[in-house]
This record gives sequence, C-alpha cells and structure tokens, in this order.
Amino acid sequence: MKKKLKEHIEKIIPLTEDEFLIISSYFVFEKYQKNEFLIKQGKSADHCYFVVTGLLKLFYDDKDGKQHIISFAMEDWWESDFAAYFSKTKANMSLQCIEDISVFSLSLESYHKLCTKIPKMERFFLQKSISGQIASQNRILSFLTSNAKERYEQLLKQYPLLFQRVPKTLLASYLGVSRETLSRLSS
Amino acid sequence: MKKKLKEHIEKIIPLTEDEFLIISSYFVFEKYQKNEFLIKQGKSADHCYFVVTGLLKLFYDDKDGKQHIISFAMEDWWESDFAAYFSKTKANMSLQCIEDISVFSLSLESYHKLCTKIPKMERFFLQKSISGQIASQNRILSFLTSNAKERYEQLLKQYPLLFQRVPKTLLASYLGVSRETLSRLSS
Repeated sequence: MKKKLKEHIEKIIPLTEDEFLIISSYFVFEKYQKNEFLIKQGKSADHCYFVVTGLLKLFYDDKDGKQHIISFAMEDWWESDFAAYFSKTKANMSLQCIEDISVFSLSLESYHKLCTKIPKMERFFLQKSISGQIASQNRILSFLTSNAKERYEQLLKQYPLLFQRVPKTLLASYLGVSRETLSRLSS
Repeated sequence: MKKKLKEHIEKIIPLTEDEFLIISSYFVFEKYQKNEFLIKQGKSADHCYFVVTGLLKLFYDDKDGKQHIISFAMEDWWESDFAAYFSKTKANMSLQCIEDISVFSLSLESYHKLCTKIPKMERFFLQKSISGQIASQNRILSFLTSNAKERYEQLLKQYPLLFQRVPKTLLASYLGVSRETLSRLSS
C-alpha cells in the first residue's frame, strides 16, 4: 500500500528511498467500513486523508436535516474539512464512507513535522492545494452559469465512473437538485 | 509599496532583508485604471497579482454575453485565473478593474525561479492556496445550502466594506441573482 503513496507523491516531486521512509513514517494506514465516519460535523477534524481504495462523501447537514454534498473523494484524492483541519476548529462538514475504504491519514502535527523534515513536501502539498482550488473555482463557475441539466452532463463527462458507484440520491444532492429532477435529467 | 508586500509575506514566513531583496526582484509593480483588463477570457493568463490598492472582479462571460462574477479581489488578495496561469492554457475568465488599482505582478517563470531561490516561499504560497481553497469550499456550501437572501446576508456580514465599493449590478452577478431580486433583498 505504501507503494501507492510513493507513486502518488513522485508524480510531483522525486524521492529517494530514504526520503520516502521518513515521509511514510508520518502517515497511518487505516481501513473503514461503508457508512463509517472519518469526520463528524461539530467535532474536531484532526486528520486529512489520502484515499487508497474506495469512495467517500464530504457533506453538510443543514438545520432541517438535509444533506448537501460538497465533494466526492475516491482513489488518489486528498480530503478533509480543510478549514477545521488547519485552524483546529470544529468541523463544519462530515466525511463518510460510501464504500469500504482504505486511506493514509495524516495528523496536523505530523503534517507540520513532515514539512519541516522534508521541505520539498510543501511543493507537493502546494500542487495538490492548487488543483483543489482550481476544481472548486470550476464548481463555483458551474453553479453560476449552468442549469441542473448542464451540471449533470458536465459531471457525467468529467467522472463517468462516479455514476456507476454513487447512488442517485447522492448525485442529486451533489448537483443541488431533487431526486425526481435527477431522474428526469438521466432518463 | 514594497513595504506592503514584505509585511504581507512576513505574516506567514519570517524574512531577512537580503531574502526580501531577492523576492521583490521577481515582482513588478504596476498600475491600472478603472475598467482596464489584467486578464481577458480566451487569451493567456501569464501573471498572478497581489493587490496593493483598489478593487477588481474575476468573471466569466457566458455565450449569451451575461457576466458571472466568481470573486472580487481587493487589498492584500492574490488573484488570477489559476488554472490558466499554472497550466499555461487560455484563460476561462477575465480579471478587470472596478477601481483604479496598483498590484505586484508575478509571471509563472518568476514564480518558479522564486520558489527555487527561496524555497520557504512555497510555504507562503501553500498557506495562501489553502486559504483560497477554504474560501471556495465555503462558497460552494453557500450555493448548496442558502437561498439568495441568506447569501446576501452572509456576504454583507463577511465583507461589509464591499457593499460601499461594488455597484449593485456586480453584487447581483456575484450572488447569482437578478438586479431586481437584489433590490428586494437589500431594501
């Protein structure tokens, strides 16, 4: 499993074996079952996660108990409530397994130690953060410029595999439409 | 003006005078007038900008010529079409002055040279990128969970000064509502 983490990091920065030994010592490999929570809204969010296998959802429960999906996370993605993680505040979102999953988790303390010990990891995290910011900018743009049907088609084109793995109810929540509207769009 | 840039960077990483001399040599101080474009949709986006004074809008023109505002940028903010900037592709958005402005611009080539020369600048940019990502995550959440009235009130609470500086038409475009709807919300 560590091999997957190494390959993933090496897509951005070259690593010696010794460097990777140090890096991997800060990560903890964990498995969670379908429906388990990694982060719960209102609790602390002490870790960020690199997804090795499986699928998760990052979502917000509003005061009426309605679930709003901010993003899905699958293989090779990093996920957390980053505001809560970096500022040590209570999570404003939950992170829950849609499938059985395996992840490498990284505590904030380990994150800081890792960046001090192997400074070029900051370049790696910077690259990941920029990609995340670009994806978010595009999602904002799609909310401003596209109707539900267009957002559905964009998602289908960008992540075709997601449609086989994610229940329709969750897709509707991600797109910000009702389950009935989604049925009309996908028929 | 360089003092503002130094103070801004030093909020995140400590700098010696010599280090800042090197850093500042990569930035170019520029002034633009109200309505001038720094980035044009469909053209290259060769620079990112640190705003010293003034206010700008980052927006997307849809195929019907309707303007959708992704974000405003004012004093101490960094702005660009980051996807186009980092991947050297054509800009998908425009960056235009709402007021006369002054900025420090940084080309992508200078950005890479700067990070190689002063590696701790990557920690600075990482911090800025994370803040940007968190702000974007919150904006996505507000689209999913809040109606126009609530989004208006959130914006008013978060950036009260923006309401004195930004024409109502642009605020409406940022909130994704019509000018008429905004008038009802703000009355």
